[in-house]
Amino acid sequence: MLSLRLTSFTHLLSPPSSAAIARRSRAILRRRHHLRQRPLAASFSAQSATAETQDRVNNSKNRVPEQVITPRSQDFNAWYLDVIANAELADYGPVRGTMVIRPYGYAIWEAIQEYLNVKFKETGHSNMYFPQFIPYSFIEKEASHVEGFSPELALVTIGGGKELEEKLVVRPTSETIVNHMFTQWIHSYRDLPLLINQWANVTRWEMRTKPFVRTLEFLWQEGHTAHATPEEAEDEAIQMIDIYTRFAYEQAAIPVITGRKSKVETFAGACKTYTIEAMMGDKKALQAGTSHNLGQNFSRAFGTQFTDENGVREHIWQTSWAISTRFVGGIIMTHGDDAGLMLPPKIAPIQVVIVPIWKKDDEKAAVLNAALIVKDVLQKSGIRVKLDDSDQRTPGWKFNFWEMKGVPLRIEIGPRDVASGSVVISRRDIPGKQGKVFGISMEPSNLEAYVKDKLDEIQSSLLERAIAFRDSNIVDVSTYSDLKAAISEGKWARGPWSASDEDELKVKEETGATIRCFPFEQPQGIKTCLMTGNPAEEVAIFAKSY
Amino acid sequence: MLSLRLTSFTHLLSPPSSAAIARRSRAILRRRHHLRQRPLAASFSAQSATAETQDRVNNSKNRVPEQVITPRSQDFNAWYLDVIANAELADYGPVRGTMVIRPYGYAIWEAIQEYLNVKFKETGHSNMYFPQFIPYSFIEKEASHVEGFSPELALVTIGGGKELEEKLVVRPTSETIVNHMFTQWIHSYRDLPLLINQWANVTRWEMRTKPFVRTLEFLWQEGHTAHATPEEAEDEAIQMIDIYTRFAYEQAAIPVITGRKSKVETFAGACKTYTIEAMMGDKKALQAGTSHNLGQNFSRAFGTQFTDENGVREHIWQTSWAISTRFVGGIIMTHGDDAGLMLPPKIAPIQVVIVPIWKKDDEKAAVLNAALIVKDVLQKSGIRVKLDDSDQRTPGWKFNFWEMKGVPLRIEIGPRDVASGSVVISRRDIPGKQGKVFGISMEPSNLEAYVKDKLDEIQSSLLERAIAFRDSNIVDVSTYSDLKAAISEGKWARGPWSASDEDELKVKEETGATIRCFPFEQPQGIKTCLMTGNPAEEVAIFAKSY
Repeated sequence: MLSLRLTSFTHLLSPPSSAAIARRSRAILRRRHHLRQRPLAASFSAQSATAETQDRVNNSKNRVPEQVITPRSQDFNAWYLDVIANAELADYGPVRGTMVIRPYGYAIWEAIQEYLNVKFKETGHSNMYFPQFIPYSFIEKEASHVEGFSPELALVTIGGGKELEEKLVVRPTSETIVNHMFTQWIHSYRDLPLLINQWANVTRWEMRTKPFVRTLEFLWQEGHTAHATPEEAEDEAIQMIDIYTRFAYEQAAIPVITGRKSKVETFAGACKTYTIEAMMGDKKALQAGTSHNLGQNFSRAFGTQFTDENGVREHIWQTSWAISTRFVGGIIMTHGDDAGLMLPPKIAPIQVVIVPIWKKDDEKAAVLNAALIVKDVLQKSGIRVKLDDSDQRTPGWKFNFWEMKGVPLRIEIGPRDVASGSVVISRRDIPGKQGKVFGISMEPSNLEAYVKDKLDEIQSSLLERAIAFRDSNIVDVSTYSDLKAAISEGKWARGPWSASDEDELKVKEETGATIRCFPFEQPQGIKTCLMTGNPAEEVAIFAKSY
Repeated sequence: MLSLRLTSFTHLLSPPSSAAIARRSRAILRRRHHLRQRPLAASFSAQSATAETQDRVNNSKNRVPEQVITPRSQDFNAWYLDVIANAELADYGPVRGTMVIRPYGYAIWEAIQEYLNVKFKETGHSNMYFPQFIPYSFIEKEASHVEGFSPELALVTIGGGKELEEKLVVRPTSETIVNHMFTQWIHSYRDLPLLINQWANVTRWEMRTKPFVRTLEFLWQEGHTAHATPEEAEDEAIQMIDIYTRFAYEQAAIPVITGRKSKVETFAGACKTYTIEAMMGDKKALQAGTSHNLGQNFSRAFGTQFTDENGVREHIWQTSWAISTRFVGGIIMTHGDDAGLMLPPKIAPIQVVIVPIWKKDDEKAAVLNAALIVKDVLQKSGIRVKLDDSDQRTPGWKFNFWEMKGVPLRIEIGPRDVASGSVVISRRDIPGKQGKVFGISMEPSNLEAYVKDKLDEIQSSLLERAIAFRDSNIVDVSTYSDLKAAISEGKWARGPWSASDEDELKVKEETGATIRCFPFEQPQGIKTCLMTGNPAEEVAIFAKSY
């Protein structure tokens, strides 16, 4: 019944000790028969800690839950939702399509923010904040922008008890209000480049939503820049997609494919859209970040001009670029497995969890003392470490719980380890005995070096694994029937493309796949369009996507 | 005409090189006759940099603007708006009452965030994120909450092109949605305390707005906690107002008075509201942060219950607490003077500005080289330093500009300083020659120590000055006529109070002053209510407020 109340001691980063969590009930109800955990009523009974501890350890084998989530291979979507619920990443909000980002999920977003915020500042951008309410008339000024966004708008029509004269759009993105302000700030070429960013919430009235991947409201950063020349704007757009690419590879261990969107898939209002496309565990593509060269589309619509060095009035050249909480979904779906989430060490809120193990009461103090020392050593060397010294669960339960949370390394310390001055270390990315090493000396410099080394190894290993998965699931195609075959197998198809927008839409209709991008990395040699047989300058990648 | 286009080289923290800024025009137009700067057309002419530089330096005395803002003593409100415009802190958004927070203003907010975010985590709170759209029915659940907030709501009535079945409130605060989620997360006493915080935007449809102080949308953090006992909730509410108090004193150099709100002034839905009240330069009070003991008001309205250690179902005890971008307004109005903004070093985005000075072209390289070395030395020791090496303005202009921006210390380096291996250092808080010290050795360890010492001195000095100002403007009163006299002089009145809510409202009606708080620090001895002559347990502070 209440058997899945995992949560009473999920204090991490000193979080809500939050409980059982009703929102898990859907998934739980579906899977109750999987579970062998004894009812919560028993484990929450008022036994003495000691008796309870012994009892728990003695029975630990019986009490470790089996799979508490849907296997990934069985139902990828159900698995994804189960991981989000069980790893306590997010919850549904009361309004359809909205999401509450819980502390553990938010901590992943904070890791993304911390890295990118530094990179943005290093490349000369300043943070600022624009209001989220945009007069409706602004949205209408750029023709393709209004066409792209008007079906998705949330509109404020009543303020302070009165019907408003002009409806207000809750920002779906800020190009229009940014241009309104740029027009006031930019006068001369000396005011350029103007490089800004904001961390904000945005609202898009999506019909089909999915936690992190597509929600009615989401968090993101949106960069907006203004330049004196088209070349500078292009360089900026490329610079920012490069920063996203590096972030994806080096921090998130996601081997995205970076490229240019087709005209059909270009952002509403942009000249060119660059994108990073990530292959999820079900081989669907996720657009994980975009950088737009907006040309003069918005500056012409808003009259954003500057006086150049020769005294001539010109429209500014612009870019915008964004990464959102969607990226958290990408991390889950790239690395997760049947045991739950698997986090790359660089963005893991907790990199190492220490689980102390004792059977007898007289062992407890020594074990906990050693665990505290180990925690201290690692913490001082800058490792994000959590000691799960809770009395209320068995070590086995804790193993599963922190595996579900995707913590890269687990350190186990029992009485024998204390006696020998060593610990046992298990890798999240290598299940079972294979990932377990015994007898690692507790000696601080040794332990610190070992752990750092292992974290680096895991980081690389996750990336390599994801690259191998990606590459084994991209098929080079030279005809449309090849393409259809590849897509029907659920793979990505890469082939030369110079056909029309209509042909592109036909592919979408017939296969469900879209052009994800024309990748920056292009094969050498003569290319012939897979659809028309005409010469083609580039290969495109087609895939089904989120 | 365009004479006040200060902005071409206001790159700070690598910001928008943003310009002249039309929004300054109002203030500028009003004050054009004050200015002696030569027209921008000339300073922006296409002379060679060298010729221009010499010309500029030669004419520097004539070209330094005088007061470019309304004197504070003359019109406090106009001064405030001028500082915000000229120090490039914020701009008006296109929707009435909204504000664009510009990079320099946002950097102050980031300094506030950085400090508080660490303190919140140290005290066990986790960040998370709740959706901003709240079903209208939620707001109606807590009686006094709906009464307090319903006049200020912005309502979304259309989403995705369709009229919504239930109107959505754009969050004015999140107690209701937080309780909706708490009800799902909290089951047992083991789930408590639950300690969370979010950094978010909020919307209140205010009629009379003022940048930073009261805007239709603003940024804040809102903490929300749930506890098993009323004592724990009370302790939490006190702990958080203490953190705010320490932040105000130690970081912002604002000597707030901390206390409890009267029943009339208590937050809509709270049992008790604690507040930090700051005295602005015009002696009006600013409520700069609040912490609420919500008791069981929301948990009863939302049915948020837990099972206690004895198996009994109880409603949780809650708190909420917030500081917002309003605090930036408080910093401006506490420390600013006729020369503009004055920032306490601990929250100044730029703590030290270096202004190199040269007359002849052959001096330039040596001066700039020395300036770069000084910058490097300070930066490496963790000081936030900006080198204003722009070719386009005179040193005098730069002095004024960075004084306007409130930078605590200025380092001047000219050819003679280079020759003697020393620099000149000026304090923002002590104008003219008195704040200027010549011949400080450039030797790194000496310079670093001197600068750090001076920054500490300025930090203390700003606080001491504000304390003296505050204390000289609080009048102890023992009768209502004393109170009226004090308020009519623009001062704060402190006197014993045990009268009714009606009496409190009468004071407001007759004097414009409200009870700001019953301060935590209370005088000893027997007290008699200034209004009724009845015994009183506490003194209250009355003041006009923002």
